[in-house]
This record gives sequence, structure tokens and C-alpha cells, in this order.
Amino acid sequence: MRKSRIDLNCDMGESYGAWQMGQDAKVLRHVTSANIACGMHAGDPLTMQRTVAAAVAHGVAIGAHPSLPDLQGFGRRLMAITANEAYALTLYQIGALNVFAHAAGSRLHHVKPHGALYNMAARDAALILVGLAGSALPAAGAALGLKVGHEAFSDRRYEADGSLTPRSEKEAVIHDIDVAIAQVLAIVTQGNIITSDGKILSLQADTICVHGDRADAAMFAERLRAALDQAGIEVRALEGAAA
Amino acid sequence: MRKSRIDLNCDMGESYGAWQMGQDAKVLRHVTSANIACGMHAGDPLTMQRTVAAAVAHGVAIGAHPSLPDLQGFGRRLMAITANEAYALTLYQIGALNVFAHAAGSRLHHVKPHGALYNMAARDAALILVGLAGSALPAAGAALGLKVGHEAFSDRRYEADGSLTPRSEKEAVIHDIDVAIAQVLAIVTQGNIITSDGKILSLQADTICVHGDRADAAMFAERLRAALDQAGIEVRALEGAAA
Amino acid sequence: MRKSRIDLNCDMGESYGAWQMGQDAKVLRHVTSANIACGMHAGDPLTMQRTVAAAVAHGVAIGAHPSLPDLQGFGRRLMAITANEAYALTLYQIGALNVFAHAAGSRLHHVKPHGALYNMAARDAALILVGLAGSALPAAGAALGLKVGHEAFSDRRYEADGSLTPRSEKEAVIHDIDVAIAQVLAIVTQGNIITSDGKILSLQADTICVHGDRADAAMFAERLRAALDQAGIEVRALEGAAA
Amino acid sequence: MRKSRIDLNCDMGESYGAWQMGQDAKVLRHVTSANIACGMHAGDPLTMQRTVAAAVAHGVAIGAHPSLPDLQGFGRRLMAITANEAYALTLYQIGALNVFAHAAGSRLHHVKPHGALYNMAARDAALILVGLAGSALPAAGAALGLKVGHEAFSDRRYEADGSLTPRSEKEAVIHDIDVAIAQVLAIVTQGNIITSDGKILSLQADTICVHGDRADAAMFAERLRAALDQAGIEVRALEGAAA
Repeated sequence: MRKSRIDLNCDMGESYGAWQMGQDAKVLRHVTSANIACGMHAGDPLTMQRTVAAAVAHGVAIGAHPSLPDLQGFGRRLMAITANEAYALTLYQIGALNVFAHAAGSRLHHVKPHGALYNMAARDAALILVGLAGSALPAAGAALGLKVGHEAFSDRRYEADGSLTPRSEKEAVIHDIDVAIAQVLAIVTQGNIITSDGKILSLQADTICVHGDRADAAMFAERLRAALDQAGIEVRALEGAAA
Repeated sequence: MRKSRIDLNCDMGESYGAWQMGQDAKVLRHVTSANIACGMHAGDPLTMQRTVAAAVAHGVAIGAHPSLPDLQGFGRRLMAITANEAYALTLYQIGALNVFAHAAGSRLHHVKPHGALYNMAARDAALILVGLAGSALPAAGAALGLKVGHEAFSDRRYEADGSLTPRSEKEAVIHDIDVAIAQVLAIVTQGNIITSDGKILSLQADTICVHGDRADAAMFAERLRAALDQAGIEVRALEGAAA
Repeated sequence: MRKSRIDLNCDMGESYGAWQMGQDAKVLRHVTSANIACGMHAGDPLTMQRTVAAAVAHGVAIGAHPSLPDLQGFGRRLMAITANEAYALTLYQIGALNVFAHAAGSRLHHVKPHGALYNMAARDAALILVGLAGSALPAAGAALGLKVGHEAFSDRRYEADGSLTPRSEKEAVIHDIDVAIAQVLAIVTQGNIITSDGKILSLQADTICVHGDRADAAMFAERLRAALDQAGIEVRALEGAAA
Repeated sequence: MRKSRIDLNCDMGESYGAWQMGQDAKVLRHVTSANIACGMHAGDPLTMQRTVAAAVAHGVAIGAHPSLPDLQGFGRRLMAITANEAYALTLYQIGALNVFAHAAGSRLHHVKPHGALYNMAARDAALILVGLAGSALPAAGAALGLKVGHEAFSDRRYEADGSLTPRSEKEAVIHDIDVAIAQVLAIVTQGNIITSDGKILSLQADTICVHGDRADAAMFAERLRAALDQAGIEVRALEGAAA
């Protein structure tokens, strides 16, 4: 068995004004890290404040989930921004979430870029930079001396090269909870995964992403958590930092 | 019996990007006029296009539902804009919805301001201006030679002066469908309403608003429609214009 | 001499709220077509209304200048939107500008996409689609049966393949007015241009773009207009349509 | 002479994307506190980063200048937001600016609400809350144990009750620099002001606002600074905090 400990993270706080998304209150019972939207793809200030408060109440580690500035496209549409723009935009959102964490008596624990920004760099030496397991982002972060988290996805298919099957393809998302749980257990206990073309690919991950926008997000998180418990795997936030 | 004909209108197209709101597809089976969001409080361009197409498919009259520019507040927060700003902002949104109606082979039938803009003037002489029954807006519109629609609300309480009980008060919305249906029938057949303090108030209305953001919006519309049919009341769009 | 007639167009109405841009009032004296921002990269509703009124007063043809939804990036940052999103977004903006033209007693004459959207399709069969001279956009428009305008730029350098030298390169913009005038005269009278590597490239254009955001935009337009007059070239809007 | 020390503050960083506003580089030579826009009425992330860097380079104290979310109206249009919304919105913007100050090796020194938010409360016990001299805001802040700054305006007229003459009135702004300087000297050295109806009003102020959006902002700041120097008044940031 490769690991006996894992982090479960989930994107959260993705409501906006009158629009609701996700089942945050229920999902928070089962995960150890929350990636909280910062206003650019979702998450108005009140939603940020409430989500941080809920994460603190559950002892879940608080992460910033910065995005490209695209409410209409939910931050999923690639935009050709410069490196300087990406840096300033990310810093802005980290700062905004950070102040809510402080106001709630907690602190910012990690940063995980959202959607189209996920493959771009975020940098703050005091933070953990979370990126796709095995990709250039955490590798670059480590080279720069950052603490990094290698992330794997519970319900996304992988291509032969370790990249995610694009959302535009039919098989991109694993809808069956049992299949997703099996994938997570394979990653955590054996360090590998079955790719979309049926091959075995080595994949080392420190944190597992649960998707908060699944219709069955709360049940998904609960059953995954139970399966990990049963397998004797400790589920806790990266580095064991307090929320 | 005062009337044997009424229009049922509903606010629609209030999704935005990744966020869904309302049960438009189901509600469209039961109403005769759709007030479609125009991008300022809700309704991105694709949502507008789809909502117009659905309204055309159901033969429902297409109306613009312009708003103050406030996505975060869903257009419900009063903003101190000038009359010139209100005019230009409203015209902008009417134009945007109008082109989708034309592209779908239909035409714009009416305009109904949304939320905080509801009490401000919209003006286009070829259109029907819909406003709170008995209020200054339709009276002013009529004085200007516009066609006007007097609107009453199926599930909102009224104050003694004919204004709506503010949403900030607990009793503002009538949750019980049967109570709401009774209120509509009293308006249409007797021309009066029971106010929040238990008095009878005379209220003449040409169109009844169904709220598309109720959790039970589709069932509400279906049951209201059935009750009107049973009472022998013809339900059709104002002026009988084609969608 | 290849031509004795040309259209001068200029992007306009690119102020936004408290921020001013351009010298529209002065430039309008010298051009024949105005491409008016529609709210997505610039141009709030009041600015649109005023710019349309000014264009009508000067007898200048009114065009919509739709953009990607990116105020922060002035519509210049490429976004990976789908063809459906591009269509709906463009239609929305065309409709919004169209209603201002009608309210001013005029009509919409042409559409010219802005910035990063310039290379994407806009389509409305009753309109003129303006695109980069020699590029796929006007060619595709013509194939679809649209009226198209081939546009050349007065103060942008060209690459050997007929594309514009990217703005990220130092020599992208021709700052010297005399050099820009010489480029326009070469295009209109000889049908060619000197590229950034000093070669002669054939370039057929119907309309010349004047940049309204140059610090010297009004003087630029005035001197270019005088040079065209002196060369015996008639300057008028495409197709001679009335504003 | 009532005072021999005063702070000069100026709103800054009010450009947005392609739109420029103000003469920040020049004004920074003459003031002691900068109120920097935080993205809601002006100030995209890159502009915030650059403005903070410039303030640090000049040793000017860095303040957050939060606003209502209204780019189109430059934060000047009153919006009926709740106290909870105001708090979360203000905290968000303070956090965003704070992180840029930290990234530049400095820290946040004060908070001054912008435009329509100026009369609403901002609260952070470690910060200085700047409000209209003599008004309820600094009084309330002091009652809550906050450090407060009483602000007077160099070029705005005052009414008999100590409020500012509204911008909608013709005489609201003092255009003549000499008249404005005389007003500042009267405030600082005599603790009073001549109101719009010619009366003398007592007015105690700790900080004087210079408007960065005047066309002659840099000359205004330079001449005011010289006049204060000549009168033997020390000009420095509130509390003498380092930038």
C-alpha cells in the first residue's frame, strides 16, 4: 500500500447572488479542504464570507479558488491573458479570500486555480500550490521552492499522457459513484489509474478532488469518505494545517 | 363577473451561464406571456436565444424584462440612476431582446421592467408597457398614449394603498397555492383583493404575474391555469397579439 | 489608378461611464462610417445613444462594433468561446445598437467585429460584414451571400502574408502620420502595400480604418481626408447607404 | 494657529484596463496618503499593483478605496445594499488591496470608502477609518474604538450643515486653485470654512482630500503643498505610519 493518508478537496462557494450551486453544507462534513470561489467565476462577497464561516465550523482547510474574470463562462473559457495579468488577477483573488479567512479567525491554507486558469501558475511562497498530479504546474512550483500538492480527480477520466479527458468529450466525467471510488482507491493505494484507452498509468497524488457541482455531490463525498475509512486511509488536509 | 379573459405572464430566462433558475420549459405550457431577462440582472445571450425559441415554440408572447445593471443583486437593489440613464439602459435591453425575437421569426410584444426598475418608466410607443395595477406607471403610460397593461401578482400580498408588501417582510409572498389561486380569482372575477390588514381593495388587472423562481413554479402555473379554465376565464396575451 | 472612391471608417463610442476615450466629435467631421462600441468592451448605453446621435448629425453611416465580453481587457484578449456563444453574443450587441439607431431616426448600416472577435464570424444577411482585406472572414461572408467590406488599416503594419503585425511587437503601429497617409494612398491608388519586411504585397480594400484611440486621432483623420481629396478620391460609406 | 501638521490624501489608481484617469505619477510627489481603487468602481488588478508600487516608491501611505460594485457609474450611484452586503463587499476590496501592499513589501495604512459608499461604514479595527469631517461616520468609528481620520475637501463647497454641496449643483466644485488653497489654509490654521451661503462654519480636519481626477490635479497638488509649506504646516500621513 503506497499511502495511508489522503486529502479530500472540493470546489465550493460557487453560488452567485440569487443563483445557487452545489451542496456545500453537506459536502463539508466529508472533505478536508475547501477551494472557495473568489468572485471572478462565482462567489460574491457574501457567499465567500458564508462559505469561509462554514468551512471554519467544520474544521476544513480554507483554499482560494481564483479564476479568469468570466462570470458568464464560469471561468471555463480560456482567455489569452499575459503572465503579468495572471499574476495580478490571482493575487487579487487570494487577497480577497484571505481577508475573509482572517475575519473568521482562520487563515488561508492553499490556492487552487479554477477552470481555464488551472493550468496557469499561481505563486505565493507561504501557500500550497495545488495542481494536476504529474503536470508541469506542481513540478514548477516545487522547483521554485513552493509547497505543492499533487491533485487527482475522483470522477474524471484520464488520457494516456496523464491529462484529463476534455469536458467536450462524452466520457470525460465518471457518473457512476462506484467506478469513481474504485479509481480513487487505485490512486491512493496502488499509485496508478486506468486511462481512457484501458492502459495502466502511474499517478502519485496527495489530494483528491470531489466535484461540488455534481447533482449527487453530498452522497458522492459521503460514500467516498466511507470507502477511504474502510480501507484504513487517513483523510486529512495537506500538511495537516489547521483550517 | 367583471372579466372573462385574462393574460398570465411569467418572468423567464433568468439563468446565467452555468447557473440555472426557474422551470421555463414547464411553465411555458401554461402561461400566455413571457417576460425574458435581457442580460443585466440575468440572461446571458445564449439563454436569451433559447428562451425566445422556447416561447415561440409554445406560441407565448415575447416580452423584454429589462433591469438595472446588477447581476450580483439580481436587479433587486435600487440604484439612483438618472432618467436619461434609465431610458438608455432600458432601450439597450429592449433592442437586444428584440433582435433575438426577430431572428426567431417573431417580434417583441411587450416590455415589463424587472425588480427595482419596475417602478421606473420604460417607453416605446409600439409596445405595451406593463406596470403595477393601479399605480402611476401604467397611468402615466396611458397619458402618453402608450398601450398599457395593468398587472396583479398571484402570490404577493398587498398593502392597504395597493402597493406590494415589501419582500423584506415575512408575509410578502403567498406560499400556499390555493390561497394564491383564490386571490387571482377574486381579482379577475370580482375586481378586488384582500389586503394584508384584512380590508377589501378594488383592483383592476389585465395580466397576472406568475413567479418563475418559485420552487414549485410549474405546478403553480398548471394549477392556476386549470382554476381559471374551470371558472370560464379565457387566458390569452394582452391585445391578443401573436408571439 | 485602381479606385477613385473609398470609405473611411473609425471605431467610436469607446468611452465607458466616467472614462473618456477618443475624439469622436472631431473625427466624425472627416470619416464616412462609424463603428460604435456596444457595451461589451466599451460603450455604456448613454455613450451609445450619444455616439449614434452624433453620427446621425454628421451623416456618417452607423455600424455596430461588437466585442467579446471583456471590459477589463478592452475586448483584445482572445477567449475560447463556442460558435454558438459568438453568434448569440454578436446578435445581442447588434440588436442593442440597432435600437439606438432606430430611436435616432436612422438605421444600422454595417457590422464590424472588434479586437479579438474581429477574426470571428458575424452574420446578418441585411448588413455589410466588414473584415480584414484579403482574409477568410469577408471571403466567407461573400460565399454566404452577404455584402462584405474589405478593410485596410491606415496605421498598422502588415506581415508578408497579409496579416497585421501583432500589437505585442514594437513596429505594429505607424506613428508618423505622413507614413500612414502614404500607405493609404498606395492601397487605394495602386492596390498594394509595403510589408514589414519591405516586400510589395497586393491588397484590395473598400474601406480604410482610422484609429479613434490615437492621441492625435482628429488631426490624423483631417490630414488623411485632405490627402485623399487632393488625390481626387471620393470618400464615402460602403454602398453609399444613408446613415 | 490650530494645527501645524496635516495629511494630504488623493484618490488614485482609478484607471481601468485601456482607460486612463488621473495623473498619479505626478500627484504622488506632493501627497502623503493614497486612496487606491480596488476594482469595483475602477482599478483592475494590474492597475492596483502598479499604483501600490508607485506609492511605495514615493513613501506615500497606502489606503484602500473600496466602492459599490458599479463600474458603469464609477461607484457614484447610490445602491440600496444591506449592511451585510456593505460589510462583505468592503472587506473583499480591503483584502484585495492589502495583498498588493504586502507583495510590495508594505502594508495597508487606511481605508476610505469611495463615492456613494463614502457615507456607509467600513470597519477593521487595525485600520484608520477616514470619513467626512464632523459627520456621523468618524464619530461612530471613534465610538467603536477605531482610529478615525476627519477629512476635509480642498475643492468642494460646503453647505451650512457641514455636508458637501451635491455634485449635481453648479457650484459644487471650486475650480480656482487659489480659492481652494485659501479654503484649506482656513481649515488647517483657523479650523473653519466659509459655507455656500457665506457663513463661517467650524470644521476640524486631520486630512485634506486632493481630487486626482481634476484636469490640473498635479499642478493643484504641487501648489497646495507649496502653500502649506510656506505656512509652516507639516504635511504627513495620519498617525505618521510608514507606507
